[in-house]
Amino acid sequence: MTLQLPKGTRDFKPEEAIARNKIISTLKDVFELYGYSPLETPAFERYDVLASKYAGGEEILKETFKFKDQGKRELGLRYDLTVPLARYIGMNPNIKMPFKIYQIGDVFRDGPVERARYRQFSQCDADVVGIKSMTADAEIIALTQRAFKKLGLEATIKVNNRKLLNELLLYAGVKKDKLETVLLTIDKLEKFGLDTVKKELKQKIGNKAINNIIKIIDIKGNNSEKIMEIKKLIASEGLNEIEELLSLLKILNVNAEFDVSLARGLSYYTGTVFEVFLKNSKVKSAVCAGGRYDKMIGSFLSKGDYPAVGISFGLDRIYDAYAEKAEKTKKSVAQVYIIPINTFKESLRIAEELRSENVKVDIDITGKGPSKNLQYADSLGVPYVLFIGEEELKQGKVKLKDMNSGKEQLMSADELVLFLQKI
Amino acid sequence: MTLQLPKGTRDFKPEEAIARNKIISTLKDVFELYGYSPLETPAFERYDVLASKYAGGEEILKETFKFKDQGKRELGLRYDLTVPLARYIGMNPNIKMPFKIYQIGDVFRDGPVERARYRQFSQCDADVVGIKSMTADAEIIALTQRAFKKLGLEATIKVNNRKLLNELLLYAGVKKDKLETVLLTIDKLEKFGLDTVKKELKQKIGNKAINNIIKIIDIKGNNSEKIMEIKKLIASEGLNEIEELLSLLKILNVNAEFDVSLARGLSYYTGTVFEVFLKNSKVKSAVCAGGRYDKMIGSFLSKGDYPAVGISFGLDRIYDAYAEKAEKTKKSVAQVYIIPINTFKESLRIAEELRSENVKVDIDITGKGPSKNLQYADSLGVPYVLFIGEEELKQGKVKLKDMNSGKEQLMSADELVLFLQKI
Repeated sequence: MTLQLPKGTRDFKPEEAIARNKIISTLKDVFELYGYSPLETPAFERYDVLASKYAGGEEILKETFKFKDQGKRELGLRYDLTVPLARYIGMNPNIKMPFKIYQIGDVFRDGPVERARYRQFSQCDADVVGIKSMTADAEIIALTQRAFKKLGLEATIKVNNRKLLNELLLYAGVKKDKLETVLLTIDKLEKFGLDTVKKELKQKIGNKAINNIIKIIDIKGNNSEKIMEIKKLIASEGLNEIEELLSLLKILNVNAEFDVSLARGLSYYTGTVFEVFLKNSKVKSAVCAGGRYDKMIGSFLSKGDYPAVGISFGLDRIYDAYAEKAEKTKKSVAQVYIIPINTFKESLRIAEELRSENVKVDIDITGKGPSKNLQYADSLGVPYVLFIGEEELKQGKVKLKDMNSGKEQLMSADELVLFLQKI
Repeated sequence: MTLQLPKGTRDFKPEEAIARNKIISTLKDVFELYGYSPLETPAFERYDVLASKYAGGEEILKETFKFKDQGKRELGLRYDLTVPLARYIGMNPNIKMPFKIYQIGDVFRDGPVERARYRQFSQCDADVVGIKSMTADAEIIALTQRAFKKLGLEATIKVNNRKLLNELLLYAGVKKDKLETVLLTIDKLEKFGLDTVKKELKQKIGNKAINNIIKIIDIKGNNSEKIMEIKKLIASEGLNEIEELLSLLKILNVNAEFDVSLARGLSYYTGTVFEVFLKNSKVKSAVCAGGRYDKMIGSFLSKGDYPAVGISFGLDRIYDAYAEKAEKTKKSVAQVYIIPINTFKESLRIAEELRSENVKVDIDITGKGPSKNLQYADSLGVPYVLFIGEEELKQGKVKLKDMNSGKEQLMSADELVLFLQKI
């Protein structure tokens, strides 16, 4: 037996899992503040559902972990949370619209393992199904801004509109059948820069169209100035939508940057698209992204209209950014570590009382003596140590040590509870 | 494409996921109150790890979902959280002991699908590794009692000791090589009753031993009386352990019933075993169970001693019990649903302000009119609806409707925040 992890996976040690839990609970809180409710689907789906032609597509199927159950049914680990959502909506035709839900779960891709590309990763998605109006798009972007504020991460939100981008490309002289491939190239701008994009475009379209595209991409100014400039070029449904979106975002106090070059790779987007980047972080890729996909669910289910807009937070990248600034020494959730000194029974009781007051308490149950205990508490990064000695206890006191400053102070039980509840 | 779930799996709709999240967050809180920190491992492991002879055993391997990655490596979905824990400890030899951790995650078994047996189910485990003393066992049982109290479920905790049970069986005349199989039969007592157990025992051991066993099982009285009775029969290391455990539990104010017939099926238990049953619930099987397994991790890793004690909460059964009493109409987390009446912009702003005050707010973004909106809010089970009308707004007021009582009242913004924060 080889004692190792499956390739492309990782464990999250306590110090890492503590930070991840904090991010997840922050995102959950924010989703719920906006009235999104949780939904859970299994980690695997029937393979034919995952392979539906309106689902993830060929590229993604190649990377799908496939297996069979004992009844020879073909199954696959899910590669995203959107296909299960579409399947869920199809199986529950009586859902009241709008359907506002969030999903937090692991997804799996059996792809090449590069730096920070894992075969299991966690997604936190929020989706609104059943609303055509830009208000839904604005709400999801407002939610996103609030999430990063609560996480203490400085973020830039970029928005665009896929219809507008298509219309601008047509105006620039791109033929209709080239739209999608040109879009995929423009999508590389942020990551690979203008020269790479130009070179790639040359293999696809003529010089005149390329020059027109570059002029459009290069439009400068604040959001209203950009819109003014584009209005001089074309009248466009996409432009109206982005204008409406930006005015709603203003009401909601959301700062978003209109970026006419933002494309988003996935072909199923039909309107608004957005991506979020972090300032002051080593994480340069988008940490979350989303958009409107009005056609996907409906065509997947071969029935009716299901306008939808959603966002997906990449938990692993957000974790990486979060970990840059978090103290990594905290290997325990405990707020206080009790060292009994010949007072084991009384210490156990005090520990239970503190827990009833919602204090997170660890206690030495090995009897290993004060100095070894202090080392242990220190190695876990527990911020306070409580000595409970016989003499002090007789006077109704305990001794609390601040592990950062080294300061010690005698306290009564009541003082202790008040003090620890505050931290 | 068939729009259906994989056999043996289920979705959790919002109203179900809301309840599950509540249970999970309660368990997390309690684990952390006792200083247990989170640990996360992948949903799948290398197959050779899962198939190690010290791991789950043959029966469980038959039910393991097996697959390969593109590099032809054999993998399997994990069937419990204990084997991944042992693998983690083996790969991280510098962990400080005691190692107190909790894991919450899905496990998978490709077994026959009966009522309430799923192929994916969730486990919430807490484990202490590195402590031989009964204090660790007592702590985990105290944690368990607190968890059910917080969940509002009345529970009975039964404890026993595997060493004691073995010693009593030997005393009753069971041969050493029959211990394990007799134990498996006794384990069926709670579920199938004495007659079934007797019948099965007859195929394994003689009548005299059976009669002795029945006498032992039949020992009545409170915990101390039972211990007194057993002391008359044998002197036993297991008895000393359970005596120590019960006295620690008394200090910790934990009610546990010493049940000398409690066996726990799994062969890896080496000392304390315990199970929890619910009173006043249709869920008759154990909702959580655990015990001491001092040899498993060490033999799994072929090195050293790793005394350990752990508990596993069965989230799905606890959910079933919890759902019996929970109101099932709550399909949304929202505390209040805003209906703008020609005040869309102002309503959006008020929604954002309430969210900043930690109120969970949903708002109509379709403009579908008061009566349809009331129906929608009612169908989701949102407890309060807030009408924001032009006239009232001019006077700095809004109208809040209690959806249960039907009562409406006019309030100022400040009054509203205070009122909603209280609920």
